[in-house]
Amino acid sequence: MKKIAILGTGVVGNTIGSKLIKLGYSVMMGSRTNNNEKAKAWVAGNGNNAATGTFSDAAKFGEIIFNCTKGEITLEVIKLAGPENFKGKTVIDISNPLDFSKGMPPSLFPQWSNTNSLGEEIQKLLPDANIVKTLNIVNCEVMVDAKRSGGDPTMFVSGNNAEAKKEVTAILTKFNWNDVIDLGDITTSRGAESLLPIWIRTWVATGNGHFAFKIVR
Amino acid sequence: MKKIAILGTGVVGNTIGSKLIKLGYSVMMGSRTNNNEKAKAWVAGNGNNAATGTFSDAAKFGEIIFNCTKGEITLEVIKLAGPENFKGKTVIDISNPLDFSKGMPPSLFPQWSNTNSLGEEIQKLLPDANIVKTLNIVNCEVMVDAKRSGGDPTMFVSGNNAEAKKEVTAILTKFNWNDVIDLGDITTSRGAESLLPIWIRTWVATGNGHFAFKIVR
Repeated sequence: MKKIAILGTGVVGNTIGSKLIKLGYSVMMGSRTNNNEKAKAWVAGNGNNAATGTFSDAAKFGEIIFNCTKGEITLEVIKLAGPENFKGKTVIDISNPLDFSKGMPPSLFPQWSNTNSLGEEIQKLLPDANIVKTLNIVNCEVMVDAKRSGGDPTMFVSGNNAEAKKEVTAILTKFNWNDVIDLGDITTSRGAESLLPIWIRTWVATGNGHFAFKIVR
Repeated sequence: MKKIAILGTGVVGNTIGSKLIKLGYSVMMGSRTNNNEKAKAWVAGNGNNAATGTFSDAAKFGEIIFNCTKGEITLEVIKLAGPENFKGKTVIDISNPLDFSKGMPPSLFPQWSNTNSLGEEIQKLLPDANIVKTLNIVNCEVMVDAKRSGGDPTMFVSGNNAEAKKEVTAILTKFNWNDVIDLGDITTSRGAESLLPIWIRTWVATGNGHFAFKIVR
């Protein structure tokens, strides 16, 4: 099994990292420093296949790299991790360009939405890596178990490289996503990221974050 | 049954108008002139309960008003129809702020998306009317028959007035929408309108426009 890097120590990185460990992968969680308290706690709870290090350490370690950082710092984190460490690798991008600076509910950063996306910006920053946008449209417990939504929802993948999307879809299957729609190249991240405004309002209206989208067809 | 106005003579107005006639409503289709060829053809095909007139004629006639115009002309059309003719009425807004000027696929007009929406702009233009944003997230054949998607999908309603949303939900039920989520006030139109970028890309990827969104929960 390929070695996995998780960039980010928040609840998304934690949940995905723990799920991958359970599935038998070796996982390194990367953060700004190599002594991050949250990363150390995650390692302590996840046994011998779990490790921690800097963003750069993790990006070097991982053969597949999950970007689980907040959208507002994603591009900075990738620069810290060292673009050369992503070369030829599949990068699963879960980030969303959410702008909380204007109050709740968040809007999208204009420079990274509508006619652009974070998925595309990451691909520009890492021209030799294969970015696949996915999983950004559900909460983290649903990410790692689609059934947690209560049904058989749809997940989207966007990316320029067909092999990388195939590799990612195989992982999605392990997360119980049985209905995966390949939207096309990385510019289709614009569509996937544009689901956040309706995600947020559905969550507020229903009081339930454990939902997902199904394309009924 | 309340009298209905349809603003717009395109395929959306045509399809909704015809469905409402079949349901027993009296419907007037409004356009820029009172001798619009498409509106006359629609009347000819729909019997004695169908009529046509100017936008102003239709807005005066209708006790419930459907806005079926393209987003780029919606605000202009409402001004032509005469804001005074909407007073106290329920206005069902199906428009989307799609900008085709930058090529395909369309993006959203920045001034009417993300931190704003067409639903909100219409409400500002018609402070004495009750705008309800709905149906904008599916193709017109699915609008009038949710089952046409092949399942039991979700429809959203957004608006400031609870009674108006109730009235609209009753019409949605006649269109076979059994799962309706009330997102909240008219600002939640931002969420509903933000579904267009993913709608368009799903349509391109699957080659099927007869789909709909289900909130699996």
